[in-house]
Amino acid sequence: MEMVLVDNLWVVIAGILVLLMQGGFILLEAGSTRMKNAGHIAGKTIFTVGIATLVYWAAGWAIAYGDSVGGFFGSSQFFYGDASAPDGGLSPSVDFYFQVMFAAIALTIAFGGFAERAKLSVYILFAVLFSLFVYPIVSHWVWNDAGWIATMGKQDFAGSTVVHLTGAMAALAATIILKPRLGKYNKDGSMNEIAGHNQVYTALGVLILWVGWFGFNAGSTVALEDGFFGFVALNTQLAAAAGAVAALFMIWALNGKSDIPTMLNGALAGLVAITASCAFVAPWAAVIIGIIGGLIVVFSMKALDRARIDDPIFAISVHGIAGIWGTISTGFFATPELAALNGGSAGLFYGGGFGQLGVQVLSVVVCGLFAFVASYLLLTIIKAVVGGSLRVSEEEEILGLDMSEHGSYGYPENMPGKEGTKGA
Amino acid sequence: MEMVLVDNLWVVIAGILVLLMQGGFILLEAGSTRMKNAGHIAGKTIFTVGIATLVYWAAGWAIAYGDSVGGFFGSSQFFYGDASAPDGGLSPSVDFYFQVMFAAIALTIAFGGFAERAKLSVYILFAVLFSLFVYPIVSHWVWNDAGWIATMGKQDFAGSTVVHLTGAMAALAATIILKPRLGKYNKDGSMNEIAGHNQVYTALGVLILWVGWFGFNAGSTVALEDGFFGFVALNTQLAAAAGAVAALFMIWALNGKSDIPTMLNGALAGLVAITASCAFVAPWAAVIIGIIGGLIVVFSMKALDRARIDDPIFAISVHGIAGIWGTISTGFFATPELAALNGGSAGLFYGGGFGQLGVQVLSVVVCGLFAFVASYLLLTIIKAVVGGSLRVSEEEEILGLDMSEHGSYGYPENMPGKEGTKGA
Amino acid sequence: MEMVLVDNLWVVIAGILVLLMQGGFILLEAGSTRMKNAGHIAGKTIFTVGIATLVYWAAGWAIAYGDSVGGFFGSSQFFYGDASAPDGGLSPSVDFYFQVMFAAIALTIAFGGFAERAKLSVYILFAVLFSLFVYPIVSHWVWNDAGWIATMGKQDFAGSTVVHLTGAMAALAATIILKPRLGKYNKDGSMNEIAGHNQVYTALGVLILWVGWFGFNAGSTVALEDGFFGFVALNTQLAAAAGAVAALFMIWALNGKSDIPTMLNGALAGLVAITASCAFVAPWAAVIIGIIGGLIVVFSMKALDRARIDDPIFAISVHGIAGIWGTISTGFFATPELAALNGGSAGLFYGGGFGQLGVQVLSVVVCGLFAFVASYLLLTIIKAVVGGSLRVSEEEEILGLDMSEHGSYGYPENMPGKEGTKGA
Repeated sequence: MEMVLVDNLWVVIAGILVLLMQGGFILLEAGSTRMKNAGHIAGKTIFTVGIATLVYWAAGWAIAYGDSVGGFFGSSQFFYGDASAPDGGLSPSVDFYFQVMFAAIALTIAFGGFAERAKLSVYILFAVLFSLFVYPIVSHWVWNDAGWIATMGKQDFAGSTVVHLTGAMAALAATIILKPRLGKYNKDGSMNEIAGHNQVYTALGVLILWVGWFGFNAGSTVALEDGFFGFVALNTQLAAAAGAVAALFMIWALNGKSDIPTMLNGALAGLVAITASCAFVAPWAAVIIGIIGGLIVVFSMKALDRARIDDPIFAISVHGIAGIWGTISTGFFATPELAALNGGSAGLFYGGGFGQLGVQVLSVVVCGLFAFVASYLLLTIIKAVVGGSLRVSEEEEILGLDMSEHGSYGYPENMPGKEGTKGA
Repeated sequence: MEMVLVDNLWVVIAGILVLLMQGGFILLEAGSTRMKNAGHIAGKTIFTVGIATLVYWAAGWAIAYGDSVGGFFGSSQFFYGDASAPDGGLSPSVDFYFQVMFAAIALTIAFGGFAERAKLSVYILFAVLFSLFVYPIVSHWVWNDAGWIATMGKQDFAGSTVVHLTGAMAALAATIILKPRLGKYNKDGSMNEIAGHNQVYTALGVLILWVGWFGFNAGSTVALEDGFFGFVALNTQLAAAAGAVAALFMIWALNGKSDIPTMLNGALAGLVAITASCAFVAPWAAVIIGIIGGLIVVFSMKALDRARIDDPIFAISVHGIAGIWGTISTGFFATPELAALNGGSAGLFYGGGFGQLGVQVLSVVVCGLFAFVASYLLLTIIKAVVGGSLRVSEEEEILGLDMSEHGSYGYPENMPGKEGTKGA
Repeated sequence: MEMVLVDNLWVVIAGILVLLMQGGFILLEAGSTRMKNAGHIAGKTIFTVGIATLVYWAAGWAIAYGDSVGGFFGSSQFFYGDASAPDGGLSPSVDFYFQVMFAAIALTIAFGGFAERAKLSVYILFAVLFSLFVYPIVSHWVWNDAGWIATMGKQDFAGSTVVHLTGAMAALAATIILKPRLGKYNKDGSMNEIAGHNQVYTALGVLILWVGWFGFNAGSTVALEDGFFGFVALNTQLAAAAGAVAALFMIWALNGKSDIPTMLNGALAGLVAITASCAFVAPWAAVIIGIIGGLIVVFSMKALDRARIDDPIFAISVHGIAGIWGTISTGFFATPELAALNGGSAGLFYGGGFGQLGVQVLSVVVCGLFAFVASYLLLTIIKAVVGGSLRVSEEEEILGLDMSEHGSYGYPENMPGKEGTKGA
C-alpha cells in the first residue's frame, strides 16, 4: 500500500517531466526554423498539447486502453473520468495523466513534417484525427495487454515504436504530401541548407528534452521496486551522451566542421534509440546503442536531403530511423535476466536466437506502415475537405506563417522592414 | 510515519515546481513587452523572488500563519527558523518552503501593473510592503484555520483568490495609478497594439507555467493519500487544454486570425480558473471551467483595452478575472463527495443550494477589494515618500528601462543605433 | 526498506534537477557572451555533458569511489555497470546517476575560463582529462569515506569545494594561460566592458540554476529521514535570496546603477556559498552567508578585472571566491546539533574553537591548489600536443567561434552583413 503511494508520486512526476519535453520541442522546433515562422511554431506547441489532451480524454484513451475488440482497438472508457482510489496498483487518474502526456508527444513529433508550410487549419484537423485514430491504435496494439502485438511479446519499454516511430511516420507522410519548402531545392536539383535561426534555442531544447526523457523512460517503470528505475535512468544517460559524442565526431570527420545541429540530433537519436531498450540491456550496450544511434542519424539526415524529403526539424531521422534502430536493438542486446524481468526474451547476442529479434522487426514494420498509411490517408481526406491545398500560398510562405496564419510576427522588432509598434 | 516522509518529498518537489514558474514568468513578461525593457523585466523577477523570500521569512509567514489576532492577522513566528522534525504532519521547514514560493508568485503577478514604466525603486518599495501586508493578510483570512473567511467554509484549493486575485488586484491598482504606457492610446482616443517582442519566449513561458502549475495545484494536496493528487493533476491538465483551445477558436472567430498571445492567455486562464476548483469538481466540469476561463479572458482583454486600463502582461485578465471565475465556479460545480473530502459543501448544480456559492462570491469581493485598496494606499504612500512620480520620465520610458534603471541594454547587440561592445 | 525506495526516488529526482542546471548554464554562458559565439557555447554544453558522462562512467567513478589507494585515488569499478538491487542503502545505479551529474557540472564551470577564445579541440581534450584526473581525485579526497581530507572531518555538504571551487580553479588556470579576449584590455591598460548579448537568457539561466540547486543541495541528503532535506532546501532558498538582494544594493551604491548581471551573480554566489553549509547552519546564518556571498562577488568581479584576469562568465568570482567563503563559513556558523547530525564539529561562533575552521581552510587551500596546478599542467601538455596555440586565431576570434569552429552562425538571421539562408 505504501509502495503504491510512492509509485503514484513517481508516475505523476514522470508525467510532469514528459510535459516539460514540450518546452524542449518549442525550442528545438522554433530554433531549427526561421524567424518569420517562430511565433507560429512555438504557439502551435501549446495548442497541440491542448488538442491532444482533449481528444485523448474524450476518446483516445478509450481506443488505446478500453476493452479490446480483437486486439485491434479499445471500445470503452470514453470521456475518462475515473476518480477512484488505487486498489493496489496505480491510481487511475495517475495512469491517465501519464498516458495523455505521451499522446501529446507523439503529435508534437508528427508536426515536424508540417513545419514552415502547412496551413494552421490543416494541422489542427490532422491533430484531432491523429490523436483519435493513429496514436491510440498503435498504442493499443503494443501497450494494451490484449493488443495483438503485445501478445507476441514485443519489447518497447517506453515507446521507441509507439511514440517516436508513430510520430515520425506521420511526419514523413506529411512532408511527402506537402512537398519541400520553397528554396530548399533549386531547379538544377542542387540543395540549399535552410539554417535554423537560433542555436541557443536548439541546444537548450535538447537539454530540456534530455531532462524530460527521464520521465519518459525511467517513469515507464511505473514503480520504484528495487530501485530498477535508477538503472533505466543510467542507461538513458549513457546512450544520450554516446549519441551526442558519436555524432559530433562523425560529422567532424565527414565535413571537417563540428556542426552543432548534427551533434544535437545525435544526442536525441541516442535518447530515442534507448527508449525501447533502456530496461533490457547492460550499460555497455546502452553506450553502443547510443553511439550507433548518433551515427545513423548523421547519415539519415544526409540521405533524406538527397532523396528530396525535406524534414525541417529532423523528425524522420531522429524519431523514425533512430526509433527503428532502438526497437530492433533489444533483439540483439537484451540480457536474459533483464528481459525476463520485463516479460520478454533475450537478444541474439545472448543466445536468444532470432525469436525476439523477429518480433521487434515485425512490429516496427507493421506499426511504421500503419502510421504512415493512416496519416497519408487522413491528409488526403483533409485535402479534399479543405478543398485544395494543404499548404499556404507561395506569397504567404515567403512572408512567413507568423503573418499569414496569425497576423503578427513572433519577433516584431527583429523583422527587416517591419518595425513593430515600439510606443512613443 | 512513512507516509509523512513521502508527503514531505512531494511538497518539496511541488515547491520546486512553483519556483520554476518564475522562469515561466520571466519568459512571459519579457516576451510580452519590448526589447528595450527586457533585461529589466527578466532581472526584476530574480530579485522579486529574493525580496519576497526575505520579507516572508522575516515577517510574512508570521502574519499569515502565526497565532491569529481575531481571525485577521497572525502575530507569532517572526524570523522563521523551525528545524524540528515532523511529528506526524509535514516538516515545518517543508511547509515554510512551499508557502514562501506562493508568496513570491503573488508578487510576480502584481508586477504586471508596473511593467515598462514604473521606477525600479518604486517597485522595490512596493514589493516589500506587498509581501509584508497584502499577501500575508489575505492568506491569513483564507488559509489559516483561524482566518475569518476560512471559518466560513471558503473553497480555494490552491489559491485562485489568495494568490492570483490578490496579485491581480495589486496589478490593477498599480496600472491605474501609473497610467497607460506612452504610445498605448492616441490623443483621438484610439488605441495602438504594443506587441511583445518574442512569442517564442511567451509560448515557452506558458509551457513552463503549465508544468509548474502541477506543483501549485496538485502540490496543494500536501499529501499523497489515495492518489488523490493525481486526480487534481488530471483536472488541471484538462482545464488548461480547454482554455487554450477555447481562446484560440474564439479569437479566430472574432478577429479572423488565430492570435497566438490570446491563445496563450487562454491556457493560463484555464489554469488560474481550475486552481480554486481542481479538488472539488469532476473532469467534465474541469473542461467546462477551462473553456469558460479561456473565453472570458478574450473578452476581458478587449474590455480592459477599451476601458483604457493598460495591462501589458494581461495580469488583470488572466489572474484577476479568471481567478474570480475559478473561485465562483466551485459554487456551481463542486460535487458532494469531493466537497466533503475537502471540508466544504456541494455546488449549486449538485443541489448544494446557494450556500457555498454565497461564500465564494463574498470571499472574492472581500479579498479582491482588500487587495486593491491596500495596494492603492501603499502606492499612494510610496508616491509621497519618493517625492513625486512613481514613473520614469518620458525620455527614459522612450529609451527603455534597461538603460534608465540599469545603465545597459538587455540586448546590447540588437538595439538600433547601439552597437554594444563587440570586442576587437 | 520502504524508506530506501523513497530515498532512491528523491536522489533520482535530485539528479534530474542537477542535469537541468546545465540548461541554466547554457543560458547563463550564452547570454553573458556575444552573439557570434552563442551557438558554440550553447552546443558545447551538450557535448560537455556527453563527454563528462562517458569519461566518468569509464573511469571517473572508479577514481572517485573505487577502493582507495592511500586516501588519494580509487582503483576499482571501472566501466560502471552495477545493476544490483539496493541492500538497505541507495541503489548503486541511483548513486552513480547522481554523481555523474555532479561531475558534468564541475566541467561546465571549468569552461568559463575557455569562453570566446579557446579552440574546440583544446576544450574537448581538456574535458576528457579534467573528468578523468582532476574532479574525481578531489571528490575522492573529500567525499570518499577513505579520502584523506574526509578522514579529517571536512564539512562540504554538497560541494562548494569539490564541485564549485574545483571547476573555478580549472577556469582560472585556463583563463590565465589563454590570456584575455581581444578587446577586453586596451594598450593603455584601460579596460572595456564586453557586454553579454542577452539578459533574458542570463536571468532565466539563474532562475533555472536556482531551481536545480535544490537537487544539488537538498538532494545531497540522499535520504528523506525526518524531513531534514526540507531544512536544507529552506537554507538554500534564504541564501540565494540574500545574495541577490545584497549584490543589487551594493552595486547600486557603488556605481549608482542597479546592474542586472551583478545582481544575478549575487544570487549565484549565495547559492554557491550555502552549498557547503546548508546542512550545518541555522536559517539566520544562511541569510548572513548569502549576504556576504553576494557582497564578495561584487568586489571579486571588480578585482579580477583590475588584475587583468578575463573571466567572461564570472566563474572564478561566483564559483571560486564564493565557494571558498561557503566552505569556510561552516567553520564559523555550524551549530553543534547540526554539525553532530552530519558528523562534524561546531563552528567558531558556537564555541567549537578553531578546529573545524582549520580543517575547512586547509581543505580549501589544498583542493584549490591541486585543481589549479593540475589543470595548468594539463593545459600545458595539451598545448604541446596540439603544437602551439590553445586559442583560435585573431581573425577567427573576431569572426566568432560559431563560424570558426562550426562553420555556421548560431543566429544566422541576426548577424550583420550575413543574411543566412532564408529560403525563397
